[in-house]
Amino acid sequence: MTRQELIEQIFSKKSFLCVGLDTDINKIPEHLRQRENAIFEFNKAIIDATAPYCVAYKPNLAFYECFGVKGYMAFEQTIEYLHKNYPKHFIIADAKRGDIGNTSAMYARAFFERPGIDAVTVAPYMGEDSVKPLLTYEGKWVILLALTSNKGSHDFQLTTDAEGTPLFERVMRTAQTWAGTDQLMFVVGATQGRMFEDIRRIAPESFLLVPGIGAQGGSLEEVCKYGLTKDCGLIVNSSRAIIYADGTENFAARAAEEAHKVQQQMAEILG
Amino acid sequence: MTRQELIEQIFSKKSFLCVGLDTDINKIPEHLRQRENAIFEFNKAIIDATAPYCVAYKPNLAFYECFGVKGYMAFEQTIEYLHKNYPKHFIIADAKRGDIGNTSAMYARAFFERPGIDAVTVAPYMGEDSVKPLLTYEGKWVILLALTSNKGSHDFQLTTDAEGTPLFERVMRTAQTWAGTDQLMFVVGATQGRMFEDIRRIAPESFLLVPGIGAQGGSLEEVCKYGLTKDCGLIVNSSRAIIYADGTENFAARAAEEAHKVQQQMAEILG
Repeated sequence: MTRQELIEQIFSKKSFLCVGLDTDINKIPEHLRQRENAIFEFNKAIIDATAPYCVAYKPNLAFYECFGVKGYMAFEQTIEYLHKNYPKHFIIADAKRGDIGNTSAMYARAFFERPGIDAVTVAPYMGEDSVKPLLTYEGKWVILLALTSNKGSHDFQLTTDAEGTPLFERVMRTAQTWAGTDQLMFVVGATQGRMFEDIRRIAPESFLLVPGIGAQGGSLEEVCKYGLTKDCGLIVNSSRAIIYADGTENFAARAAEEAHKVQQQMAEILG
Repeated sequence: MTRQELIEQIFSKKSFLCVGLDTDINKIPEHLRQRENAIFEFNKAIIDATAPYCVAYKPNLAFYECFGVKGYMAFEQTIEYLHKNYPKHFIIADAKRGDIGNTSAMYARAFFERPGIDAVTVAPYMGEDSVKPLLTYEGKWVILLALTSNKGSHDFQLTTDAEGTPLFERVMRTAQTWAGTDQLMFVVGATQGRMFEDIRRIAPESFLLVPGIGAQGGSLEEVCKYGLTKDCGLIVNSSRAIIYADGTENFAARAAEEAHKVQQQMAEILG
């Protein structure tokens, strides 16, 4: 999906919500848990219920890999279902990959040479040649970790160099020499609050994927106050607060309700 | 596998070689390529041929993921085959994962709750809570990226802070407060040459996983000159130079030869 198409989706749906498909077999409703294809069935119901209110879905690979081949099949089935039924939604494989060039090229094939996936999250630690092979596919995006939502983000991402520049800033400035705002986004956690002011100085036009509202405690208002641009420039993810809003047979309807609430806030913000 | 068991394997086999199973369907011999289960059949032949000369195997997940479910099945089959037939070999899932706590816990399940896998490579960018869930399994190891073998390692890993400490050193010092030398290793590329002197000042006893000899151009002698400890302290990986030594039906015998050559050098070094 191109940047222009993404922006059009956001403004026509008045939403920049991404629903995170972190599907944990132990958290899905009892009645689904025993089914042969429980993970996919849960995802399908969540997708059908929330599609009107979001512009993106983000399955997190870890939640599928932990079931081995069976989990991987559920992941592929989910992507296929989305691609076929909701082709205008932006699909992010939350994988946080990153390796030497010839290996990253394999990850690029894994994610971008199958129809449906628009973007993959990537860890920056190994530098340019670990990211570049993922930037060679037209209309496909790298979403690079910059300043993450977790406590451990303070361990290394905020380390400052001799000139006082924190690592996350160096990552963002360097990565912007590898690709433009039509192929490169950054992950910035909603829990970072006012840091969004700094982020927008460093990357005024880049789209940001923002996890951390909902279960992790970040605030949508604060993120938007500092992070919003004229093109929106934000994709805000919520996983647990939406998909596990209810643990009964009513789970999909409640997920829709939660997604709708967030979408209404977003519509107001987009004005 | 415990540290003591690993050291015993190394000294009894006079080898600290790890064979990297970066199995690329386009590089395996023609006669295998058309087979239903080509990747596993190639791995099986390489494993049977090289097992006497190495102490570890390291399948790189990217090479399996790029074939989706089929590739993931070949990965699992390879792990099962190793676990059943070569239970004394140390098995590293080269995955370079790392995510927020609840997600890393899922990766821990993906890799450590199946029999066979002893260690997983992890990227440090997201800090403590992204690594810790992988450190809760007895006899299982985290191999944290420190100073990698690729050109991009210079982009961020060598950035120095106000006191002149490079990022990789900060990563290594910080991580050593999370776990001891019986659960934590570091990735240091063979291409980093004399940097091993610094590495040994920072982590005198830690095992290092060293990629980058062979196709990437690193030197075994130089790595050992600075990196070897009384417990050996090194697992040196070679992938392409061994597994693709020959592209004909003779590939396994040639792989054995190449592995044997490296093992003989290692025996001399351990002398």
